[in-house]
Amino acid sequence: MAILFRPSFPIDHTHWIPVLKTVFAGQDFRIAPNIGNPADIHYIIGWRLSAGDRDGWPNLKAVLTLGAGVNQYTGHPEFPQNARLIRMLDPGLRQSMTEYVTGFVLRFHRQIDQYAVPGDIMDWNPPIPALAKDRTVGIMGIGDLGRACLDALKPFGFQLKGWSRTPKTYEGMRCFAGPKDLQAFLNNTDILVCLLPLTPETRGILNKDTLGQLPSGAYVINAGRGQHIVDHDLLTMLDKGHIAHAALDVFSKEPLPQDHVFHAHPRVIVTPHIAAISMPHTAGPVLKESIDLLESGKMPAGLVDMECGY
Amino acid sequence: MAILFRPSFPIDHTHWIPVLKTVFAGQDFRIAPNIGNPADIHYIIGWRLSAGDRDGWPNLKAVLTLGAGVNQYTGHPEFPQNARLIRMLDPGLRQSMTEYVTGFVLRFHRQIDQYAVPGDIMDWNPPIPALAKDRTVGIMGIGDLGRACLDALKPFGFQLKGWSRTPKTYEGMRCFAGPKDLQAFLNNTDILVCLLPLTPETRGILNKDTLGQLPSGAYVINAGRGQHIVDHDLLTMLDKGHIAHAALDVFSKEPLPQDHVFHAHPRVIVTPHIAAISMPHTAGPVLKESIDLLESGKMPAGLVDMECGY
Repeated sequence: MAILFRPSFPIDHTHWIPVLKTVFAGQDFRIAPNIGNPADIHYIIGWRLSAGDRDGWPNLKAVLTLGAGVNQYTGHPEFPQNARLIRMLDPGLRQSMTEYVTGFVLRFHRQIDQYAVPGDIMDWNPPIPALAKDRTVGIMGIGDLGRACLDALKPFGFQLKGWSRTPKTYEGMRCFAGPKDLQAFLNNTDILVCLLPLTPETRGILNKDTLGQLPSGAYVINAGRGQHIVDHDLLTMLDKGHIAHAALDVFSKEPLPQDHVFHAHPRVIVTPHIAAISMPHTAGPVLKESIDLLESGKMPAGLVDMECGY
Repeated sequence: MAILFRPSFPIDHTHWIPVLKTVFAGQDFRIAPNIGNPADIHYIIGWRLSAGDRDGWPNLKAVLTLGAGVNQYTGHPEFPQNARLIRMLDPGLRQSMTEYVTGFVLRFHRQIDQYAVPGDIMDWNPPIPALAKDRTVGIMGIGDLGRACLDALKPFGFQLKGWSRTPKTYEGMRCFAGPKDLQAFLNNTDILVCLLPLTPETRGILNKDTLGQLPSGAYVINAGRGQHIVDHDLLTMLDKGHIAHAALDVFSKEPLPQDHVFHAHPRVIVTPHIAAISMPHTAGPVLKESIDLLESGKMPAGLVDMECGY
């Protein structure tokens, strides 16, 4: 039984190697391109699929991802038929997402960017700011990361709402489910946070129609996938003033092209896909535990339902 | 016994009037300039001192402020000798401060402003962000507001330090006290939050020397008083790169003059003294309760020690 680490372009994953070498010390741990006999490989960590993968790993049991999003694997024609897909549930990644989301929710809630408009004369007698209890934050995607963000936002007293494909519960929060509830969810959401998985159903879910169902002056935070947003529609709604500001960490094409209008837009904050980063020191032991569980015939948390796509 | 509300220029406090009229319904509640006989006035709310105040209110028992900072009263030659000074301890004000401080701590911790430098090509392979547990936040001023901010920051796992004039305790945090401890407090504080009262001892406390004791690349958040910072020294340390970024809500002169370099500085975020705002609906009942306590011979929380200046 060998474990193969296959770091993926364009992200530099070389900093994982010393941690994984330690975590899998004493096991047959290999680093691509030094694969050896493909029949030895039972687990692959940190993969992107490429031609030949479907039939190239006769004894592969599972692919373990380094990130939380798995849309690059699910439904991909080269995904090995008999392998499981295990999504990363790293406490470091979870925490980095809560920090990012809470930081932007507070920044938008307190309308910091509306005081400091370059070139404008600052109004020194602005309206009294709303308190968190007067602001509704809506989270799309009530999984591992969505719940962690809710836990972080709750102590501030925000009105919280959640939306997901299937009905979920979260204490003290109204949960909306499926397309039938989407409009009701959006209608009074002042700050929208997208943490959805990317599936055929969620691709382009933030478009002219749905963004238009948010109240005027709403804020958008996207740390899901770039393809959740129809860029042109978001820009239209920003330029109309219907959306006050957007914080975007993910893009349809990454790196976001240097000439993309998001970079220069005064009411878009671009970050380079850093909202939630897997941290080798916290994620390494999770990978080890997942493989140990699979070896003993048990299923680790993070097992992806290939039908649902997450 | 009459209660006088004296709104103060340049801040518009007229939105307090309907709330205070309700809170003090049935009592002799007056609104300046309709003072009537000054001998009737036992309590004044929301005051700035002016010539004649010292001897003009023969039966004044207390001045109740609308804000948390009281430096405009303490040591002022026109402060009535026999009146108490009661500082506002408004739950709304306390919460707005925690929202502001936590928002900027998370923004600086996650180095959001270092990814999105206008005109620069964004690095799509940046270093892995630190987690809160790897970042030290130091709060200057461990009173009502400092503790509320610590309570909000603690769940994120930040390393927390506090500094105050006299020794304080806060669970799980090292507290530093007095000038002898200041350097040790500053030495590894990555994000400095100033919530101090303004006194002769704290005026200019953030200067070339003390800012220089912070680690290189530190962040500064000032929601205390503008006079805590020596503006020129902060600018020098920003331009040297020793201070990475500053968020300033308070200034030596307010409104901050339109031509002040802080407005245009790319690494200074200016907000118009909105970090912590007293909210009429939450503060009104606090004013009522304080006056009721004073009338029954008890001391409300918020009683200012005129010797200490806070």
